[in-house]
Amino acid sequence: MSKTKIGILGLGTVGSGVFKTLKNFSDIEVVKISVKNINKPRNIDGLDKSLLTANSEEIINNSEIDVIVELMGGVNPAYELIKKALENGKHIVTANKELLAKHGEELFKIAEEHNRVILYEAAIAGGIPLIMPIKTILAGNKINKIHAILNGTTNYILTKMDNDGVSYEEVLKEAQELGYAETDPTGDVEGFDAAYKITTLATIAFNKRVKIENVYREGITKIRKEDMAKANELGYKIKLIATATINDKNEADVRVHPMLISKNANLAHINYVTNAIEITGNPVGTVVLSGAGAGEFPTASSVVGDILAINSELNKNDYILPMMRCRHEENAIPVNINDTFNKYYISITAPNAIGIIAKIGTICANKNISLSSILQKEVFKNKTADITVITEKCQEKLIKEVVNELNDCTVNSLIRVAE
Amino acid sequence: MSKTKIGILGLGTVGSGVFKTLKNFSDIEVVKISVKNINKPRNIDGLDKSLLTANSEEIINNSEIDVIVELMGGVNPAYELIKKALENGKHIVTANKELLAKHGEELFKIAEEHNRVILYEAAIAGGIPLIMPIKTILAGNKINKIHAILNGTTNYILTKMDNDGVSYEEVLKEAQELGYAETDPTGDVEGFDAAYKITTLATIAFNKRVKIENVYREGITKIRKEDMAKANELGYKIKLIATATINDKNEADVRVHPMLISKNANLAHINYVTNAIEITGNPVGTVVLSGAGAGEFPTASSVVGDILAINSELNKNDYILPMMRCRHEENAIPVNINDTFNKYYISITAPNAIGIIAKIGTICANKNISLSSILQKEVFKNKTADITVITEKCQEKLIKEVVNELNDCTVNSLIRVAE
Repeated sequence: MSKTKIGILGLGTVGSGVFKTLKNFSDIEVVKISVKNINKPRNIDGLDKSLLTANSEEIINNSEIDVIVELMGGVNPAYELIKKALENGKHIVTANKELLAKHGEELFKIAEEHNRVILYEAAIAGGIPLIMPIKTILAGNKINKIHAILNGTTNYILTKMDNDGVSYEEVLKEAQELGYAETDPTGDVEGFDAAYKITTLATIAFNKRVKIENVYREGITKIRKEDMAKANELGYKIKLIATATINDKNEADVRVHPMLISKNANLAHINYVTNAIEITGNPVGTVVLSGAGAGEFPTASSVVGDILAINSELNKNDYILPMMRCRHEENAIPVNINDTFNKYYISITAPNAIGIIAKIGTICANKNISLSSILQKEVFKNKTADITVITEKCQEKLIKEVVNELNDCTVNSLIRVAE
Repeated sequence: MSKTKIGILGLGTVGSGVFKTLKNFSDIEVVKISVKNINKPRNIDGLDKSLLTANSEEIINNSEIDVIVELMGGVNPAYELIKKALENGKHIVTANKELLAKHGEELFKIAEEHNRVILYEAAIAGGIPLIMPIKTILAGNKINKIHAILNGTTNYILTKMDNDGVSYEEVLKEAQELGYAETDPTGDVEGFDAAYKITTLATIAFNKRVKIENVYREGITKIRKEDMAKANELGYKIKLIATATINDKNEADVRVHPMLISKNANLAHINYVTNAIEITGNPVGTVVLSGAGAGEFPTASSVVGDILAINSELNKNDYILPMMRCRHEENAIPVNINDTFNKYYISITAPNAIGIIAKIGTICANKNISLSSILQKEVFKNKTADITVITEKCQEKLIKEVVNELNDCTVNSLIRVAE
């Protein structure tokens, strides 16, 4: 049997893990690896320098190569390289969540036209089996809801804030020192990373294309340690949740934002850099998949799983991996965040404690918003009071009106609450 | 495109769920269903009585049928029927954990000889994606450890005992009334069900055949409410754990028994009838998969997933689902429970409180067993004392010697403790 020939674009953390793992498979051969700097010292067992090239084009144009493994990250130059590679008849395995979220539609179409597959298990939730299970063993389901923790950096920060009672800024600094957060943490802490992932995940799970520009996104930078403490007191944890729901009219509500989730919820026990995905569908009900969402070896597991799947069927040109194909000709209908219904946690500092509960109650009652919890701890010496409210489900645009009408108070935080 | 033709053996809870779910798939047709009693009233939408037969042979001999879905349970007559069906060139989808544990080796071999597959996602952990992920996206891993809650009935009983502080007998009665436990609960509460499941799961995960007769098994009937209370006090939960580990010499330690697990462990939050499987491998690390382990619709999800996988590749006779094939030519080397190393929880009632701690300490020290926790709550009026000990890791045969040497005490419970 001839070996399956692999070309790898990028030899960073994940690329190294993939190279090391592939050495266990004698029927797979890494033919070439593109790197930015050929002369950088690399401590990788069995890595012959002759495998390296600085020229990615050389790899995608190498007629001997069957599968391109793209581990460069970012849109450019990965986008052009993958496009050309597909046109050259290569199958693609990629861990590039940003590229898929922004150009997945086009790339999957090109793959179809050339009778090739793009597999991307590693792009979402690292080593957790997710995409392949959804497309294979869960294929009998109509999936209508996903709740997930898809970003390890923010989950680490929120877990530490919760456990140690410290501020976002303090934990971020520590996370940066430990390498859990980047020097510019924007992509993680503002929710971009999770938004890329939920865009593709929802598209696959719902079998309708979700567009990144329709995904509502809020990060965790405004979460205060006081919110953590209050949430705990009320029986909740605060997590950055990527959520997607679809209804019978194909209206898909897809978003990333902090949420209060019940301490009894499946995701409440998912701490530090662990990721977890709660999938609800019919007939399966709810399943939860969790594990390491990043890292050299967990991510390598998914990349290698995809490579082995292609390898197992490589000579079946007409039918390769029919279940893994991505065809999403129909777009999901986007839902504006202002039209969604949620429960809300509101933390308010009132300038004058007297009458404030009545005022909040009246403003909410006038909009038909019920309150499920109210917490007023103490009136400060200056007569101001801190009040925490959790509402019943109501429309987002109404809660924004409530916040506006509380114009003589300071609204410290407005955080959605999972049902 | 011609439809894939299905014959179903058995129309109980799961069979009904499968029939209802398959109606959503226009390229799959249920041709015939065998039932014990054709005239039993069945409230299933779209079920034409002409589909039913009391003669299973008629189904496995029907040359029109591509896939046999076996949902009868038990070894007989399922074993003979599946064997003949394979010889007749049918693919098999089954939810029959007992059959696979007892005759899987032979049946998988027959399937190979006839170039057919046996899929069985529903046989282990109901709707949870497990077997297909292990065989596909996790295929790059060397899995060396599984810790799992695979039986909903016992997990329900243990959860209720823990939450309500009541005895095993009380909860069993309630569980039987609610339909969570059978009139004869032996299969569940003595761990047979979980033992069948871990036998096949370990075989698949380790890619070495594990034999049911080498799986050590203990049930939950001896767990006292006092053990639950003590476990809680010491920071643990008690669960019926199916566990399998394999070392580099292919020695597989596979067992089902109650265990104390840390309240922070992944499986500690898995309550009531939920199942969960913690898989540890290299390179993936640890992933946890959880969801409904039984029930009409969750189980139907897995059966239908398997049918769709076969359907997707049905006309590729030479290569059908290569990753899903089961070839385990090598047997795992069994490990005797007496040779294993574990931590132990021991509950002791001593006839005379004076000197008992010294005695326990001396007996253990003589065997080089360290104690990690000791709990002595009170000395009763009759001078007896209740003592709870948790040991460090030591060999099972030594702990049995300790129990023997405590011959003037009553050893109420000896339960293994997860690391």
